[in-house]
Order: sequence, then C-alpha cells, then structure tokens
Amino acid sequence: MHPQTLQRKVLRTICPDAKGLIAKITNICYKHELNIVQNNEFVDHRTGRFFMRTELEGIFNDTTLLADLDSALPEGSIRELNSAGRRRIVILVTREAHCLGDLLMKSAYGGLDVEIAAVIGNHETLRTLVERFDIPFIFQSHEGLTRDQHDNNMAAEIDRFQPDYVVLAKYMRILTPEFVQRYPNQIINIHHSFLPAFIGARPYHQAYERGVKIIGATAHYVNDNLDEGPIIIQDVIHVDHNYTAEDMMRAGRDVEKNALSRALYQVLAQRVFVYGNRTIIL
Amino acid sequence: MHPQTLQRKVLRTICPDAKGLIAKITNICYKHELNIVQNNEFVDHRTGRFFMRTELEGIFNDTTLLADLDSALPEGSIRELNSAGRRRIVILVTREAHCLGDLLMKSAYGGLDVEIAAVIGNHETLRTLVERFDIPFIFQSHEGLTRDQHDNNMAAEIDRFQPDYVVLAKYMRILTPEFVQRYPNQIINIHHSFLPAFIGARPYHQAYERGVKIIGATAHYVNDNLDEGPIIIQDVIHVDHNYTAEDMMRAGRDVEKNALSRALYQVLAQRVFVYGNRTIIL
Amino acid sequence: MHPQTLQRKVLRTICPDAKGLIAKITNICYKHELNIVQNNEFVDHRTGRFFMRTELEGIFNDTTLLADLDSALPEGSIRELNSAGRRRIVILVTREAHCLGDLLMKSAYGGLDVEIAAVIGNHETLRTLVERFDIPFIFQSHEGLTRDQHDNNMAAEIDRFQPDYVVLAKYMRILTPEFVQRYPNQIINIHHSFLPAFIGARPYHQAYERGVKIIGATAHYVNDNLDEGPIIIQDVIHVDHNYTAEDMMRAGRDVEKNALSRALYQVLAQRVFVYGNRTIIL
Amino acid sequence: MHPQTLQRKVLRTICPDAKGLIAKITNICYKHELNIVQNNEFVDHRTGRFFMRTELEGIFNDTTLLADLDSALPEGSIRELNSAGRRRIVILVTREAHCLGDLLMKSAYGGLDVEIAAVIGNHETLRTLVERFDIPFIFQSHEGLTRDQHDNNMAAEIDRFQPDYVVLAKYMRILTPEFVQRYPNQIINIHHSFLPAFIGARPYHQAYERGVKIIGATAHYVNDNLDEGPIIIQDVIHVDHNYTAEDMMRAGRDVEKNALSRALYQVLAQRVFVYGNRTIIL
Repeated sequence: MHPQTLQRKVLRTICPDAKGLIAKITNICYKHELNIVQNNEFVDHRTGRFFMRTELEGIFNDTTLLADLDSALPEGSIRELNSAGRRRIVILVTREAHCLGDLLMKSAYGGLDVEIAAVIGNHETLRTLVERFDIPFIFQSHEGLTRDQHDNNMAAEIDRFQPDYVVLAKYMRILTPEFVQRYPNQIINIHHSFLPAFIGARPYHQAYERGVKIIGATAHYVNDNLDEGPIIIQDVIHVDHNYTAEDMMRAGRDVEKNALSRALYQVLAQRVFVYGNRTIIL
Repeated sequence: MHPQTLQRKVLRTICPDAKGLIAKITNICYKHELNIVQNNEFVDHRTGRFFMRTELEGIFNDTTLLADLDSALPEGSIRELNSAGRRRIVILVTREAHCLGDLLMKSAYGGLDVEIAAVIGNHETLRTLVERFDIPFIFQSHEGLTRDQHDNNMAAEIDRFQPDYVVLAKYMRILTPEFVQRYPNQIINIHHSFLPAFIGARPYHQAYERGVKIIGATAHYVNDNLDEGPIIIQDVIHVDHNYTAEDMMRAGRDVEKNALSRALYQVLAQRVFVYGNRTIIL
Repeated sequence: MHPQTLQRKVLRTICPDAKGLIAKITNICYKHELNIVQNNEFVDHRTGRFFMRTELEGIFNDTTLLADLDSALPEGSIRELNSAGRRRIVILVTREAHCLGDLLMKSAYGGLDVEIAAVIGNHETLRTLVERFDIPFIFQSHEGLTRDQHDNNMAAEIDRFQPDYVVLAKYMRILTPEFVQRYPNQIINIHHSFLPAFIGARPYHQAYERGVKIIGATAHYVNDNLDEGPIIIQDVIHVDHNYTAEDMMRAGRDVEKNALSRALYQVLAQRVFVYGNRTIIL
Repeated sequence: MHPQTLQRKVLRTICPDAKGLIAKITNICYKHELNIVQNNEFVDHRTGRFFMRTELEGIFNDTTLLADLDSALPEGSIRELNSAGRRRIVILVTREAHCLGDLLMKSAYGGLDVEIAAVIGNHETLRTLVERFDIPFIFQSHEGLTRDQHDNNMAAEIDRFQPDYVVLAKYMRILTPEFVQRYPNQIINIHHSFLPAFIGARPYHQAYERGVKIIGATAHYVNDNLDEGPIIIQDVIHVDHNYTAEDMMRAGRDVEKNALSRALYQVLAQRVFVYGNRTIIL
C-alpha cells in the first residue's frame, strides 16, 4: 500500500529537436517511478522545435526531477512541472452576458475545472448575474480615465486574486501593451469573427455586408495586438441570405461561447503550447 | 398617421395542395391591407400537402380574415392565426443543469423570446440555480408514486401556468401516453444522441462501445414514445479514440444545449410544422 | 389526357417590394393554368427589394405570360422565364485536376445536370483527363500574349460553345474587366480560402503562417475583381498544428471541389440571385 | 555524405501497458541511430492496452531492431515494421461511380499515395470509367453462382494482385465470413449511413422516413458482419424538409466519397489501429 497519496502533474517540455529526446525524458520519469498517464509530442520540422506534454502520476520529488531533466535536455530548453487539476481565473467583461454565463454555469455545474475568483466589469450591467453565482463582481469604470490609468486599475484588481489566467469574455476594450505584457500567455480572448477575416469593429456587420455564407468565432491568446494573438480554437456556423446582421450576431453568440469554453478547457488542461504566432495543442 | 398600432401575427396554413393556393391566401391578406413581412411555403409532393407560414403586419380583424380564408381554402384545411412574439414555457428537469442553464440565460439576457413561467423538477438538485434567476422552482418527487400519479401531479402544476410549450431539459423520466396526449405538439425534448442511433439508456456509453467518430443530440417533439417524435434539430461533433464515455458526455452537453435552444427558437417563432413523424421548418 | 406535353420552367422575379406582389404573380400563373411546383421568395427589408423563384409546370404561352407579368409588376422589375433542366458550361483550368475531375465525374455519372461543352486550359496538363471523358480540350497558351490578347482568345473559344455559364475550376489567371463584363453573373470561381480571409496569392501558406484552426473555400461569382464577387457557397474543415501548409493544401482540395460543385448545383437550378455583392439562394 | 540512402519506416507497437514502455522503445530506436520523425501513442486505460506509432528515418537493420524490441517488450506484444509510402489496393464495385471516381482521380492526380492494381465489378457498368484511367477492370458476375462461389472467384482475382487493402467502393454485396477472414483488417467499406443508424437496405429512404435533419456516411473495416466493423471515419451533412430521399442520396454521395477517401488516407499512412470493435488513429 502507498503510505503517500499519488499525485498527478503535467510536465511540459519545449526544446530544440534532437535524437533521443523522448527516450531521455521518459527514462527520467521511469527512473522516478512515475507512471505516464498520457504523453503527446510534436516536432515542428520547419523550425526544429520539439514540444511534449507528459501527464504523470506518482510521488514527486520536483527538485530532483527537474534537475535530472535539466542535465539531460539540450541548452535552451524550457520545462514546466505543474500540478494537474483546478485552475483559478479572473474574467473581464463589458455588457454582454452569453460568454460569461457559460463560464459561470460550467464552473458551478461541471464542464470546466476552474475557480472563477472574480469578474471585473467596466460597466455595472453584469453585476446581478455574477452575484447570482456567489462570485465577487468588481466595477472598474473607464470613464474619465486614460487607457493606462484604467488598465492599471484593472491590473491591480486582477493581481489581488493571483489568477492563472485572465479571460476576456466579450471585454470590449483595447488593452495597453503594458497590460498585455504583464500576463504573458495568460490572457485568453474571444473574438467575434473568424479571424483573420473581419478584424476590427462590428465584425457581424462587416460579414453581412460582404455576404458571407459562414460566420465564426476565434478564441486566442492576447499578445500586443488585441486580435492578432495565437489562435486556440475557431468555430463556425452556416448562415444564409435570411440572416440580418442582428441575426448573425444572435447566432454568433452560441459560437462565441462554445469556442471560448472549449479553448479554456484546453488551456486549463495545460494542453496549449504557444509558439510564435501559433498554438500547438497536445 | 395610424391611429391604431400595427400588429404582427403569424398565419399558418396546412391544407391539401391545389392550384392557386398561394394566390388565394395572399389575395385575402392583400384585401385586408396586411403587409406580408415574410412568406414561406412547402408542398410535400409525395402526399400532396401544402404548408405555408405567412408573417403579417397591419391592423387585424381576425374574425373576417379567418372567415375569408375558410371560404377560400379547400376542405380539410387548418389555419391558425397567432400573435407573433414572446411565448410562455414550463421546463421539466431532473438533475442536469446545462440545458436549463442555457434557457435561463437566454430568457434573461437575450437569444430566446420566452417567458419561463416555472421549472418543475423530480429532484431538488436544480432549485438553487432556478431561484437565482427569480423563477419559481417546483419540486414534484416521483418517489412512492405510480407513473400515472406522478404525471398527473406534474400536469396539474404545469396547467397552473398555461404554457404554450413544455420543454424537457434533460427530464429523465418516461412519460405516460396520457400526459403526452394532453400537450399535442407542445412538448419538446432533447435526446442525448443522434437519433435513431442509440435509442435508450446511456447513449454515450453505447456510442463509446460502438466506437463512433461523431456524437450528436436531437431535439424533437414528444409523441407517445419518448424518443420517437418528429425531429426538429440535430447537431453533432467529432470525437476520437481519446474520448472516454465520460468525455463524450461532457462534450455532448454543449451539443445538447445548443440543439435544444435552436429547436426552441424555431418553435417559438412558429416556424415548425409537424407532419406525421417529420417536421417542416418554414 | 393532355395532347401537349407538360413543360417545366422557372420564373425569376426581382422588383421593388410592394403589397400584394405574391398575390399578383401567383394569380397570373393560376390564370395561365400553370401549377406552382415550388415557390420561394425573399424580401430584403433593408433595401425594399423583392425576389421570387417560381417553378412552374404546364403548357406555357411565354409571350402572354410575360406580358401579363409586365403589366402587373411595378416599374423597374426584372422577370426571367427559362426552361428548367440541363445547362451548358465551359470550364477554364490551369494545372490542378481535382475540381475539374469532380465536375467531369458528376456530369458523366450524375450529380449535376450539366453538359460540359469544352474545357479550355492555359496549360496542356489536363488534356488527357478531359479527353478521357470524351470532352474537347482546348489549349490556349498565355505565353507571349498580353492579358487582353489572351482573354480575347479565351472569349473567342468560349463563345463558340454559347455556354450558360463559365466555370473557373482552379483557373489561376487574373481576368481583365472586359472579359468579366462579357459574362455578367455567368462566371463562377472557386477561391481556395475562406474569403475574405487570405485574399491573394498562396492562401494556404498565409493560413499556415497565421496558425488558423479552420480552413475553407469559397465559390463565388466573378465581378471585376477576381476574389471579390458575390459569394454562393463557403465550406470549411478543421485543421490543427499537425498540418503543414502542404497538408492544408491537400485537405483543402476536397473542400474546394465540394464547394464548387454545390455552388454550381444551385446556379444550374436557377436558385441563385445576385444582389449587389450578395447572393440570395431561393 | 551518406553512402546509404535514408529510409523511412513505420513501427507500430501494441502491447499491455507498463511503466517505461515509451522509454524502452524510443531508447532502442535511439540506439539504432534512427530519427523519430513523428511519434504518437495512446493508452486505453480501461483495458490497459498501449498503442504506439513511430515514424522513423535512418538506415535500418530490421532483424536486430525487431529482436531488440522483442526482448524489451512485455509478453503478448505485437510490433510491425513496414516501409512508409505507397500502398497497393484492389477496389470492388457494383454500379455506382462516385466513390470509385474519387479514388481514381486521387490515385492519378494526387491526394492518395496508392496504386490501384485493379477494379473488380459484379456488373459491367463501370468498365469504361476504370479503363479511362488505364487500370484493369475485371468483371465477375454473381449471376447463377452461390455466394460462396462468387466470393471465391472474387478472392482468386484479388489475390493475383497481392494488394495491401481491399476497398469496397459501394460494392453492394454481402460478403461471406470466409471471404472476410481471408483479409483481416484489410477490407475497408463505405456505408451510406451514419452508423449505427439505418443499418440495412435503403438507408436514405429510412432516413427520409424518420425525418432526420442530418445524414452521414461511415467508412469502416469489415469484420464478419458487413455494417458492424470498426469505424474509421464518419462524416455528416445537414438536410431539411426540402430533401426527398433522392436528394438525400445525391447529397450523400459527396459525404460517402469524402469519408472513404479520408479513411483510406489514414489507413495508407498506417495510422489506424484496430482494437476490438474500435479504431485508434495515431
């Protein structure tokens, strides 16, 4: 019998590709008597970059495990070892409820292994909804503030909760580069179009004007530029001439919330690797 | 200026097909100075049946309009004239929250033009969720009751609210024929499989065992037999060997809630015609 | 018994919206003892434009039918009466076989009610494939010619066959405005991207670089600008990080050929109405 | 410079799960100085079964490599080492051309790395199409023969070509168990429905009668029972009340041919593992 409880952790390795990498890493895990629950790897042959996600179960000695990995991996390697399981997020919103509602439902009733530490809005509109789920709602008006001032206020509130990720659930503000750089690969946004089509304002109206037959939504990490970060999930639905721009908007809401939830599911499971402007989902 | 406000109504006509039907019906509307906002028709050539949905705007004299239609339409015709707009539903639930949650969100924050008069559960599980949205939750335990007794209790509660439709949002009880016949073409169910595959219990486990690569959900009217009614909407997602039965169940929940909401959207808009075991959506 | 054979024709009406239009048009058909096999209409409420496709069966007196329509319809109306059934096309190609192959197969073995009068290529590559299906292949090299000269040569060849439509099945040349204007609403193109994303050269490489998770294809009419015409059909598939640009290209070929065939199917059935930069499919 | 050319091979391992398996196998590859181009594995935790596909590049000594693997792997392990690249198939057909046509096109013009050694039909219908592509067509009538006799004749013809796989491209005959057992995990069929719905004859008519809103196709291995084998790929399209059974059949053809081609693509790449009645695609 095990006197110690088995733990589950996720090891993520990113390094230059080389012969024998899988062997080396899995050997070390084997030596540490860790069971590999799931292992996925990917080599980007264009750039010679190796990515591996290893889900491990056993009794961990993090220090020696990481030291062993460091001595085996080539220079310039990144390896992260995090406990599997529940993550904490802060959600930013403006006035639209659909994405937020889906996250609240899934956090409370299953579907996302996540603790919503707080919801911060630049409008009061969604306070009631959030408080219905017994989660703190924080109002941070942008009125009368510069963009820098407002983003600093937002960051101050966010940092109180030490979240793993910041989720923009239809937060309709452009973020300052300073804000974005504060949370590298930690900000996830839902864009209401099938990027890179219809970047910019009022994408459903743009889509309507162009007469497209499919509309979509894109969940992505936020880098410097709001709509240009690495894409995690995209989803679409067919539309036809009967759809006004408003109909597209209504139908698009379901696509948006599904795409955001599915992206967050993958991110929470530590499956998403960012590489340049692309993501690898292992 | 109009001294009277313009009203919007939906005329639904079902009758044996005949030459000149569209002309006759639209002539009558024209004569009544009603504007046709939208008109859709369908002829089932196999059975010679004509279906038309006409969305009208103007000042209505229902009595003379229906009388004019009756004198113009062939024998055996059905015509219904209902005001467009908001409908009232009662939702039946058991323990799963996802479909209910989506309906609550859309009723409160847009997406479905519906008033949820009450939610009735055969378990207490979802009381908190429902009451968070300020909607009455009624607990009707089935314990110690025959199926007839329980269904009678349910019907008594439902009838207090005079709903237009009864929505089964993962209500996991088999209904008696008496109950079903009490609400003809008014009960809408979500079945957690791509019917007619995997009728019966634990469809995701059946799907897993069969090794399918796509799973789905089916929103349908309930006739006598719980899973055999006319299908309104079906939707699917791709799965692969990484999905356990539990993963299918989790992923399936989004498909279920989307299918149910989209079906209800069409039903509320009076677009769905039931014809035998099939639906026509105009 | 009918001494004369019943004919089937499609009446297409485009006009300013007005009360009683459906009644007027269907009355005239009724008066002419024509049976309405199928009728679909759409009103663009934003611009007050009415579109109707009426599939008729009976014995036609085209002259009096059109005259009756002309006297009933508002000024500025367009009405076209064409026989239903098989249409004739000319296909333009360059070097890629997949779209062409699908059209050849469907023309010969069912799926498209179309006569392929000829295939014209600016390379010889596809001659064998075309001739395998006993269809004339015409080689029109662009080498040493100006764009105008080449397009004139192409047009001269096309016009010998008097086609109803010109289908660009991966014809990788930019057309002159003169060429395009010669065939208004008659040129159908398949673009290898989900327009308006990735307009321009090498869209799969652009898509790869952007790290998209869905790729698509767009079948559209060609107006002045090659990739900017009214969209008929769009289709997509999911891709992931395992796809190189070449994999996207390979997978995209199936999407392209399906989108083009489905668009052509609708066009051949005279279901597609062009209105500004949009299509209405009735 | 390499005096010997690098080869590419695929190693497929199936064995009881155990700690250190990935390490052991990849160690051996490393020791043999083979480069892992791509590695994918899957553990079925329910049954404790380990599956791994390893794409290797280098100079192979098959005998010592396999011997090393045998001494390292647990008892009851299966390991196969095959060269990557082009495979040979024989296609069986009846009268429908669409799936066959897609395979002919892709074999000749790209999309499937496959040599079609011969097409065998129980009708003459498709001879012309096959011969257009310079591939032998063999007619094997079933008339006047018992099922056993006909299947023996078919097998005799098939075996002349020593194919890697036998593809049933709408071959509308039930196979004898003897025939099926002769080609274990080598027969791939396309079934014109979304299995397990509508098993049996005339699935599109069944689908029409049931009023489904989605139709599909299933590519699968053939075991004893024609429609019950392990599913490789399923695909679907949405339909509505406008579709007659014939329309479903026509639209379904594209789904069928796409599903069959995509399944064959995975099979040819040696990515599909059969495990009980399920497939694992690595």
